[in-house]
Order: sequence, then C-alpha cells, then structure tokens
Amino acid sequence: MTEITLFNKLLSKNDRIAQEIREYLHDRNILSVNMIGSPGSGKTSLLEAMFTRIGGKYTSAVIEGDVKTNNDMLRIQAAGIPAVQIQTDGACHLNAEQVKNMLSQLPVNDIQLLIIENVGNLICPVAYDLGEDIRTVVVSVTEGEDKPLKYPSAFMSAGVLIITKIDLAPYVDTQPDALKSNALSINPNLKVIMTSAKTHAGIDELTDFLFSHNTNSDR
Amino acid sequence: MTEITLFNKLLSKNDRIAQEIREYLHDRNILSVNMIGSPGSGKTSLLEAMFTRIGGKYTSAVIEGDVKTNNDMLRIQAAGIPAVQIQTDGACHLNAEQVKNMLSQLPVNDIQLLIIENVGNLICPVAYDLGEDIRTVVVSVTEGEDKPLKYPSAFMSAGVLIITKIDLAPYVDTQPDALKSNALSINPNLKVIMTSAKTHAGIDELTDFLFSHNTNSDR
Repeated sequence: MTEITLFNKLLSKNDRIAQEIREYLHDRNILSVNMIGSPGSGKTSLLEAMFTRIGGKYTSAVIEGDVKTNNDMLRIQAAGIPAVQIQTDGACHLNAEQVKNMLSQLPVNDIQLLIIENVGNLICPVAYDLGEDIRTVVVSVTEGEDKPLKYPSAFMSAGVLIITKIDLAPYVDTQPDALKSNALSINPNLKVIMTSAKTHAGIDELTDFLFSHNTNSDR
Repeated sequence: MTEITLFNKLLSKNDRIAQEIREYLHDRNILSVNMIGSPGSGKTSLLEAMFTRIGGKYTSAVIEGDVKTNNDMLRIQAAGIPAVQIQTDGACHLNAEQVKNMLSQLPVNDIQLLIIENVGNLICPVAYDLGEDIRTVVVSVTEGEDKPLKYPSAFMSAGVLIITKIDLAPYVDTQPDALKSNALSINPNLKVIMTSAKTHAGIDELTDFLFSHNTNSDR
C-alpha cells in the first residue's frame, strides 16, 4: 500500500465516523464547532472570555485536544464548563474516532454548543472532519499578516476566521485589516470576527454568531 | 503495510539522506541549523535581524520552508543573503531529500553557515533529521508559558531554545523566565537565548553562539 492510498483509507474511515457524530449531535440539537489554530494563537483564552461573558445564558461543553497535558481542560472547567481532554501523544491533529469516544463523557442531553479545540497546528487538522457544523480558524495578530497566504488550506476549509489579540496590534507590525484582506483573498466567504480575550472586544459578536446558528438556542 | 511500518520506512530513508547532507556540509566546514517553530513565532524576522547585525562579517545562506509562497525567501534575499524556497504544498515539515535537492542552488563553497527555516509547525518537523548540526526551537512570548509542556518533543529534540518577541512581554501575561523554566524542565540541556527582532536584544548572543560552533569561522 502506498502512502497516499493509506492516507485516503484513513480519511475515508474518519469521514464515516464524522458523519455519525454529526447525526448524533443534530439529533440532540447541539451545534458543534471545530477550532483550528497555531500553538499560542489564543484559542483557550478566547473560550474563557466567551464563557465569562455568557455566564449561564447558554449551555456548552468543550473537548480539548493537545499533544500533552490537560492544562486546557482544567482552564475550561475552572470557568464552570464541562470539559474533557484528548491527549494525542504526538499526533498533530484530532480525529473523529477520538471525538466520538469522548461524547459519552459529556452532558449531551443538556448542552446547546459543543466546542472542539483542536491540537495547536495550522496544517494537519485541516484534512480531518470531526463532525462539526462550523469550522473556525483562529489567528492572532502577533502571527503576522501573511499567514492566510502561507497556510491557505485552513482558511479555505473554514467558515469563520477569528482574529485574536487585537489589543496587541499597536505593538506589532501587523494590521488586522491586512490580515483579514489576505484571508478573504483565499476564501471570500469567510465570516471574520476580530477579538481580544483581554478587552473582550468582539466576544459578544462571536457568541451571538454561534448561538444564532443553533436552532435550539431558545430552549 | 501498516501505518507505523510505512512511517518507519520513510524515516529510515530520511535519516540516510540526512547523514549524506551532514557529511557533505562537514566536508565544506559549513555549520547547519534547523529552525523549528509555530507559524508566526518570528523565525524569519529573527534571521533578518541577525543578518542586519552581522553584515558582511560571516557568510551565510538560507533554505526556506513553507506550505505556500516564497515570501520568506524574498525577505532573506532582500537582506542580501542567498536563499532558496521549498514549498511543501501541504506537507507540515521539510524532509532531508528536499534539502539535499536544494544544495546545488546554494554557494556551498563560500558559506560558513546554512540556516534551514522549517515549515511553521511545532510538531511534525521533529521526526525529520535534515542533516543539521544544531536544532533550534523558536517560541515567542506571545504564545504563552506552557508551550514546552504541551509540545515536549520539539523541546526534547533541540539543543537551543530561542525565545522571540521579548519586547512584547510587558503586554502579555507570559513571563519569559517562566517559559524558560518550563522548557528546562523538559530538557535541562537546552541553551536558552532571549531575543527581540525589534530591539535586537539577544541577536549578538545568538550570532556569537552559532559562529563559535563553526570550526571555520576565522577563514
């Protein structure tokens, strides 16, 4: 078997399980979001800010993905949100089977939103459908304006771009608008939200966007 | 063939070519450095600052690795340094064969230092020896203190940790010393250099360190 044949076989298995997850979550009116971004792009801080803002208004759960540690799970739990951790022990992305195995550990009958925070990586997670409804790519202004051009697949496959750490824009050479323009040149259909976990800029916009997509958000 | 068998076969081929590169470069007294870091960790800016500081004092060349674009090659060439670009077109790391194929395009009889800037990724490049003498892991203070704990392999396999963007430390919650301590808890043998491409802090220390390792640096 060649490398490409093997990869296609793995992906085809992954896609099948992802579809099972999607149906399982839809049956329970749960909106799921797959967050993809580099290490340190601010994914967990963004979630902490979001959960601080929404308080008890909506019900959510989080699946955390990391190569090692359960630090991020503990941070989300400290924010009062049910969370579980997948440690990939070397692998650079989550796969659908790992996500499926976690569902029984989450309060799936009581949540409206499931966030899956992928392993910090702007390349590998792209090929793996996790059964999500919305894929977001997360990029901080400190990473530079050119990231959409250098890592186009993540931006092509996402529906939403969350630009983080806009409070740091005055101290770096990145113009958030230039980062946004570069992303839209790769994928003109991206919904772009500018955020700061520190000042809470854009967090309400993000929350409103996510929960407006959940058909069950009024229950 | 299983996935693991296939991966081991690929790695064994890679290791063989990496050894050829190492011998080829040693025959010419060229020190080679493999730079591994997340997207936006500041690898190219660090090189620009280094080449600005050393001017014509030493002779260098750069191999740039990216999924897409030759932006970084153009930035290094603009600094007056010979540079070539490898575009991996999806792959999340460079391999030794790609590096070997580039050597004929570089002035290998006139350089003392070859820098290989890997694809922006803190996971995949770790398994691939590129024939380097020194492996550096590059992390910016904006990525957070916990990255060595969450991505330990890169820190375990490196000899040098370059902490970048220390000028931004006052604006983020990261203490550079805590980042350093976490890295040393993973690999106590790491040489740690704190840098800022903006203020040029630590750039001379980095240059002195690299060229002190080159037996031919006085020619």
